[in-house]
This record gives sequence, C-alpha cells and structure tokens, in this order.
Amino acid sequence: MPTQDNSRFRCAFVLFEGFDAQDVVGPYEILHRLPGAEIALVAGSPGPIRNEHGSLTLAAEHSFASMPTPDLVLVPGGSGELRARDDQALLTWLRAAQSRDAWVVSVCTGALVLGAAGLLRGRSAATHWLALGELAQFGATPSHERYHFDGKLVTCAGVSAGIDMALALAARIASPAVAQAIQLGIEYDPQPPFQTGSPARSPEALVRSVRAHSRFA
Amino acid sequence: MPTQDNSRFRCAFVLFEGFDAQDVVGPYEILHRLPGAEIALVAGSPGPIRNEHGSLTLAAEHSFASMPTPDLVLVPGGSGELRARDDQALLTWLRAAQSRDAWVVSVCTGALVLGAAGLLRGRSAATHWLALGELAQFGATPSHERYHFDGKLVTCAGVSAGIDMALALAARIASPAVAQAIQLGIEYDPQPPFQTGSPARSPEALVRSVRAHSRFA
Repeated sequence: MPTQDNSRFRCAFVLFEGFDAQDVVGPYEILHRLPGAEIALVAGSPGPIRNEHGSLTLAAEHSFASMPTPDLVLVPGGSGELRARDDQALLTWLRAAQSRDAWVVSVCTGALVLGAAGLLRGRSAATHWLALGELAQFGATPSHERYHFDGKLVTCAGVSAGIDMALALAARIASPAVAQAIQLGIEYDPQPPFQTGSPARSPEALVRSVRAHSRFA
Repeated sequence: MPTQDNSRFRCAFVLFEGFDAQDVVGPYEILHRLPGAEIALVAGSPGPIRNEHGSLTLAAEHSFASMPTPDLVLVPGGSGELRARDDQALLTWLRAAQSRDAWVVSVCTGALVLGAAGLLRGRSAATHWLALGELAQFGATPSHERYHFDGKLVTCAGVSAGIDMALALAARIASPAVAQAIQLGIEYDPQPPFQTGSPARSPEALVRSVRAHSRFA
C-alpha cells in the first residue's frame, strides 16, 4: 500500500467543457501558494478543455480516476455546468470527496453541480446572484454571503468571489498570516472603477438588463 | 488586400513560459465580454505554455506572425517575464503595436517587458509594488496607482489589479454602461477577508517578509 505524504495538501480543480476561466484561476492563484500545496487540473479524461467563451483552453493533466483522494476539490461554474450536472463519473467522485471529509469547494454556479451530486441537501450555499433561485431544487438554503463555510463545504458568489473565498480558505487551512502574505503577494487591494458588483448596489435597470441577457432569465 | 471588419475588437494576449495565470485570465474574463471582442492567446509559436508555478497550461492558438495587427495587446507578468525581455520577436511585435497606435496593456511585471521593448521611455507606468524600482532602467516614471492610463499605454499594479484595469479599459473602449454590466455579470463586489493588499496598508514585518521571499529581494 503506497504511503501518503501528509506534508502535502493535494487540490484537484475540476474542468469541464464550458467552464468559467476566472472561477478556476482566481482560487488557483491563491491556493497554489499555500505551503505544501499541489494543484492538479482534472477532468473525465486528460486533455485540452475549452472554456465557456471558447477562446481559452486549459489542459487537464489528470482524470478523476487518477486523482482519487485529494484533500480539496473545487468545482467552477460557467454555462457548461448544466451538462456537468449529468456527468455521473464527476458526481460520484464529488460524493466520495465529501464522504472522506475532504474540502468540497465551488465557485459561482459550480454550486449547482454540487447540488446535482446531492451534496447540498439540508445545507446552505452561495452561488452567482442570478442562480440563487436554483438552489431550492437541491434541498439547499441560499446564502447571500460573498462566501459561505458550512463545515468543509465551501461555496461562494459569482466568478470574482472565488478570490475572496480562497483567501478565507487559505487562512483556515494554513493560517491568517499565510493568507495575508498571499494577499500582499498578489497585491489584492481591489479598487473597482464602479460600484455595480452586486444587484443590491446596482440600478434596477442594470440588474434587469443583465438578467435578461443571462441563461437564468 | 483583405478588408478588415471594423465591428470587431481584436485582442491578443501574450503567453510565455512562466507567465502568471491570473494576469491573463482576469482581463480575459472582462474584455471577452466587450461587444465585438475577440481574444486570441498568442506566443512565439502556437502550443501549450506553462505558467510560473508549472501546474497550469494554457494553449496559445496563434503566433505573433499570425496576429500582426490586433487592436489591443496585453502582456502578463510572472517570473518568465525576465526571459521574455530578451525575446526579440515579441519585442518587435510590441513595438509595432505601439507604432500602429493599438492599445498596449500590461499587468503586473508585464510592464518590464514593455520597458525592454523601449515602450516606456519618457512615460509613466505602474507595475507590481515589488518591481516599481525596476522601471527607472527603462526610462519610465513609476506610478503608484492601481492602474495608469498614459494615452493608449495602460499598465497596472500586481496580479489582481488586472481586473480593475480591465473594467476601466472596458469603460473607455465601449462605455461605462457596458463596463458596469460586465462588473455585475462577474459579481465583482470585492470583500477581501484581510486588509493586506498593498504595502502601504500592511504591517512592516509582513512587507519585509514578502519582499525577502521574492525575486526582487
């Protein structure tokens, strides 16, 4: 039986056709800086995987089978999550992660994939503001927080929220001091030019327009 | 002579071995949502390119030669920028972009590649806080802003600053309304768990420690 190196913190980030690139790369940028962390990009089978927009290709270097027991799994959102919800190999692998008490993490509409795997039943979860209404079908209570820790089940709001969530995760997994050093390293001192990052702080007409152009219209 | 479709806004994002993934994907996530935008990932030759950390591979689908006249070029940072500063094909292509009055954009230490191409002489530029001292050798005045517009030369602070800069760019290239819709779409309502995103707001010991572990020590 192979021995396991406990000084390593093994993360598996899921890719599927139509993933959102920022959902993957935001947390990647932070968690790969954790002491001992190793991040593998995984998919049904190794190879190039296209993002939602179609003009960016990330390489999956592992399959679910070749990465059976990571310490943390992360599921991104993106329009491809709709098909990912039916990917039985992925859902089984996610259920196994939760059973082993691994960290199970989603960004944006990745939460809906966790829901499809049955991992949100009786739990509370965050997701993209446009998708909060989808959570009930999975037996989950919507959280309107930027990120939400429910034990080792960690979900967050849309796309860019993965950065805030990953820093909070880094603080829990390593220490606040490590997370603070990472934040300074990536110079995360956000200065958005506008204040339209959430529906609560945006004009109603803008919210209506963004919703009308979305797949959750 | 081929005609050019003026309704398209053609962006070329540079990849080189050792690029920083967030530097590329943050602005990608925003600019690909601009009306008419097309983003191509370009490198010396097409193929898989590894990031600084080495566990993430993005595919370059174009060479500099196959993408001669984009409307915007973007150069990321990452430790690989040091070698990129000697890549004559890249530097020549960047100089041509500035001569054509294209938008010339960098994230983080990508500014040093622009410097090596001679594009910062007599200009002011932002870069990662650890690298501000490097700008003088290229004849540039350091800007301590989050992002800095000097005509169509646009530079920004470290890594995560690319998000703020890209939203400001979207407002100039399209309109503030378009940028605001994109910001709401990516739910960019940052809530960092700590306040250590800049050296000015961090304890001195943390700044010393992050500097000591950097390649700019």
